[in-house]
Amino acid sequence: MSAIPESFLENTAKLSEEITQPFPNSRKVYIQGSRADIRVGIREISQASTAASISTEENPVIPVYDTSGPFTDPEVEINLLKGIPSIRNGWIDDRNDTELLDGPSSEYGIERQNSPALAHLRFEHIRNPRVAQAGKNVSQMHYARQGIITPEMEYVAIRENCRLQELREDPRYNKLLRQHAGESFGASIPDVITPEFVRDEIARGRAIIPANINHPELEPVIIGRNFRVKINTNIGNSAVTSSIEEEVEKMAWSARWGGDTLMDLSTGKNIHETREWILRNSPMPIGTVPIYQALEKVKGKAEDLTWEIFRDTLIEQAEQGVDYFTIHAGVRLKYVPMTADRVTGIVSRGGSILAKWCLAHHQENFLYTHFEDICEIMKAYDVSFSLGDGLRPGALADANDAAQFAELETLGELTKIAWQHDIQVMIEGPGHVPMQKIKENMDKELKDCFEAPFYTLGPLVTDIAPGYDHITSGIGAAQIGWYGTSMLCYVTPKEHLGLPNKEDVRVGIITYKISAQAADLAKGFPGAQLRDNAMSKARFEFRWEDQFNLGLDPDRAREYHDETLPKDSAKVAHFCSMCGPKFCSMKISQEVREYAAKQGVSETSAFASGMEEKSIEFVNDGAHIYQKT
Amino acid sequence: MSAIPESFLENTAKLSEEITQPFPNSRKVYIQGSRADIRVGIREISQASTAASISTEENPVIPVYDTSGPFTDPEVEINLLKGIPSIRNGWIDDRNDTELLDGPSSEYGIERQNSPALAHLRFEHIRNPRVAQAGKNVSQMHYARQGIITPEMEYVAIRENCRLQELREDPRYNKLLRQHAGESFGASIPDVITPEFVRDEIARGRAIIPANINHPELEPVIIGRNFRVKINTNIGNSAVTSSIEEEVEKMAWSARWGGDTLMDLSTGKNIHETREWILRNSPMPIGTVPIYQALEKVKGKAEDLTWEIFRDTLIEQAEQGVDYFTIHAGVRLKYVPMTADRVTGIVSRGGSILAKWCLAHHQENFLYTHFEDICEIMKAYDVSFSLGDGLRPGALADANDAAQFAELETLGELTKIAWQHDIQVMIEGPGHVPMQKIKENMDKELKDCFEAPFYTLGPLVTDIAPGYDHITSGIGAAQIGWYGTSMLCYVTPKEHLGLPNKEDVRVGIITYKISAQAADLAKGFPGAQLRDNAMSKARFEFRWEDQFNLGLDPDRAREYHDETLPKDSAKVAHFCSMCGPKFCSMKISQEVREYAAKQGVSETSAFASGMEEKSIEFVNDGAHIYQKT
Repeated sequence: MSAIPESFLENTAKLSEEITQPFPNSRKVYIQGSRADIRVGIREISQASTAASISTEENPVIPVYDTSGPFTDPEVEINLLKGIPSIRNGWIDDRNDTELLDGPSSEYGIERQNSPALAHLRFEHIRNPRVAQAGKNVSQMHYARQGIITPEMEYVAIRENCRLQELREDPRYNKLLRQHAGESFGASIPDVITPEFVRDEIARGRAIIPANINHPELEPVIIGRNFRVKINTNIGNSAVTSSIEEEVEKMAWSARWGGDTLMDLSTGKNIHETREWILRNSPMPIGTVPIYQALEKVKGKAEDLTWEIFRDTLIEQAEQGVDYFTIHAGVRLKYVPMTADRVTGIVSRGGSILAKWCLAHHQENFLYTHFEDICEIMKAYDVSFSLGDGLRPGALADANDAAQFAELETLGELTKIAWQHDIQVMIEGPGHVPMQKIKENMDKELKDCFEAPFYTLGPLVTDIAPGYDHITSGIGAAQIGWYGTSMLCYVTPKEHLGLPNKEDVRVGIITYKISAQAADLAKGFPGAQLRDNAMSKARFEFRWEDQFNLGLDPDRAREYHDETLPKDSAKVAHFCSMCGPKFCSMKISQEVREYAAKQGVSETSAFASGMEEKSIEFVNDGAHIYQKT
Repeated sequence: MSAIPESFLENTAKLSEEITQPFPNSRKVYIQGSRADIRVGIREISQASTAASISTEENPVIPVYDTSGPFTDPEVEINLLKGIPSIRNGWIDDRNDTELLDGPSSEYGIERQNSPALAHLRFEHIRNPRVAQAGKNVSQMHYARQGIITPEMEYVAIRENCRLQELREDPRYNKLLRQHAGESFGASIPDVITPEFVRDEIARGRAIIPANINHPELEPVIIGRNFRVKINTNIGNSAVTSSIEEEVEKMAWSARWGGDTLMDLSTGKNIHETREWILRNSPMPIGTVPIYQALEKVKGKAEDLTWEIFRDTLIEQAEQGVDYFTIHAGVRLKYVPMTADRVTGIVSRGGSILAKWCLAHHQENFLYTHFEDICEIMKAYDVSFSLGDGLRPGALADANDAAQFAELETLGELTKIAWQHDIQVMIEGPGHVPMQKIKENMDKELKDCFEAPFYTLGPLVTDIAPGYDHITSGIGAAQIGWYGTSMLCYVTPKEHLGLPNKEDVRVGIITYKISAQAADLAKGFPGAQLRDNAMSKARFEFRWEDQFNLGLDPDRAREYHDETLPKDSAKVAHFCSMCGPKFCSMKISQEVREYAAKQGVSETSAFASGMEEKSIEFVNDGAHIYQKT
């Protein structure tokens, strides 16, 4: 008999059904790697044929990068109570450098595991944690630096390519693969992502694959500026609102709509249990800010925090499988006064907790003083650092100031130390920055942090639009992504106002998928324009269903279309309600082509020759453009 | 007895009530110019005092640029059946260079005026049109070039400044006016906008004030890259949907939410009557694309269009008061074949109509050949040119191609001709452009069109997000606005899918206000950061009501906040539902300041000295940052 309440069971069953709904006209397919258990899922979107009135062309499937994991694979039975399959077990086992513990080794983990009061909340299939064998370092960076290409590295290489080499051989994709030259500000994106390139980038510290050995459910993702720009979504309850089911739902929802990674920022009740549910069901890397939970453990009194409590929290979370930790080790005592004259002081929660601790004790930030101790924990589980920007600006007024940049320099110093331990690192960035100040952030990060991946929140480019901060920040995100940021932390419409609900998560994700795609296009990431081109062709040919299906949010597109033209017949109509049947410019353009075709020569030359003739006439006529007719 | 049906009357009465709702905590005030009838309306947003627990500071009113016209002035009785007050009558009369006609002089205008069948649709207070006296040129550019500062020029100078000089004298605004240095790519924005500067910019052709002498209701707006970036909204019925009331409602809604100008793109029934209703109630400049209506007159057959029909349409609309005409005179016969190999051909409706006409007749575009004839009409009413980009790209794939740029060069050539006639000109631009190709558009426009104001649609920076094209395009709009575009044509969430409703108009406008504000900030427009700073201060001080009220969409912000914390008490709470009461970083930051204040010295120096002491200790201690504690 399950200890989990009936209502919870009902909710998760309903949720399982909802999140496993397939995307329209889409099929999950797997690309096999060098071993049988390397199977990279991608989504293939099928298209209709071009209408006979235009030509008799078949339109090929469009493969797209897929973050939805097993949820959209009809072959996989999804049961949130059991968790999703562990695809990395064989990879980790074969490395033969870890051992299984008998149970959690953190004090808090043991306490939560054994508390009968939590039975009704506890995930039922908790595994014993894994840890590196004594003296071993199990980080992807460590392997990379030894010249080892791990299955994780091969996986992300296949995933990033998304069949591009194959498509390049296929003439049906010739036109669809045409792409503008990119401007990548010194990034070195190769024409084909190979596993060896991945290894090299990780060894250099220019990219990371956050992949805790205790999160075998994870589908590896690479974060680095020579790869596709990624987006992070934040969920998490707060003391005021939200339940475990809601958070699991938002996680699955996030995977479905395109989140590459996810941070659980819970600060409310049952953080430990919520996290377990999320990890066991998440194909995405999961990040946390351990100081939040540590603060809960000292009942919210920042000054009562100790290294011992924090250390226990790191181990607790690492053994659950968290893939990256935000560590605000750059909030140094001497930087805190630099924020006193700001308009919005310190706005990072982690940053303000540590600033308060520093002031209360008149001591240096214990995360800074214990940084190498933290490294020892990270390497035993392969948790990646996300070095937090605790002093990031909370307002345009405070952007790029001394406090912010002083901390960034310290993050660079800490990056070097982490790299001495072969620990993977990314650097968190702002925040709120007017457009003309964004590039300075990127340039300084690349220089001060030695090209470690940058991971920014927005930035918001204006502060005057609460309720629309997904947009104010999506503008900045697209730009900083173009300049070289590797991962964009999404912002939802509720930012600065309240906790996002499921719909806010969706809108936040789509907005950031737009920013990331815009950045990939601008950088010239190979194949990035394929989906845009397919969409444009579908648009020109009035293939309405294909337009919906190729979009980032097919349901929303269909819903909007149907508001004014609900009938099925409108889906094959050669117009939409914006212009009506007579005025559609796309229709007229097609008539222009048809007209040319009727002249009996090929379209382009028909135009060219016919028009040239006319041009010559004009010129012979003295090129009197203002002739009276 | 009114011929207008009861239902129409009811709808407009309801509408009048809705659009005259005041913005929360806002007051319409007028700044008086050099004559009594120059009264520039601005909105003043009042703020609460800072909470006593923080300090005892009064927060001053924040004046903001106001597009809502008389609708938000409780002193003005709004009756859509009568139209709004004519504020420019005295200005126009005093110039003594126009004459009143007995009635419309266009054939079509006469026909519509006299048709009894239209009585139920017709605006009841149609005025006789005004026209320039024989041989006179009534354009703002003509006056400017003669050294005359018109009331329109003075009006926009006051409007752009929005009290800045006064605020600079007032110490309460010292901090709030702090602003980052801009990067304006060669724009020359002065520290104070004077009427003489306005005159000079108009004389040079770098800015325009679209202001037809038959639209005396208009509150003048300046469009140029040394002024605030403006946004245009599009409304208009189509053959498929929408009524007159709906269009008038969208117009008023657009003014309310921040549209600077508005284009009526109707292509459905009763275009003439709809336009009259819109003009008589619009404080915003109104633009049209006359070729749409001309095409209606020839029953949708592009090949049947003639110069005579088009000419009659221009006069018809100019006499109603349209302030700018989109004229696709750059779609030259020889450019049409350049589009045949595109992914999406010609997507501008006007462009495709003219391309079809050119091909059908094997003749040069009649708008090009009759360009000087068009100029003669424009100068008799002061209609401004918006030279249409009929060959703009409809897909990323087609961006910056030969057809697009060839047309742009022709628009430059036409600009010179228009300027020979002292006609105001702006240039329309794309469309769909990946980020790395946006700047090329701006640079080429400035060069080829001699710095005439650029007016762009977006551009969309990716094509894969139907349903979210306000965002895909808002990203591009912010960038091109920064680079120098003077006016951004909004895109709603329904773009590419259907006709926008009222809510879509609102979302499209707010998105574009964000892009325009981001651009003003990035360019360093004087005073642009005032509202951002006020918002940030309110945010830091937990003045929730002020945060809502200072935002672009107070209602939406409040609604989102209240979803999770609906109680009134939460509006004064020092936290929100995102973080809950214990974790709020803003709260902790304040504690940090208070802590410092308690030390008995001023905040900043408390930090600085206290921390310095500590720093010295650290250094004396050998700066052992990894000390074991």
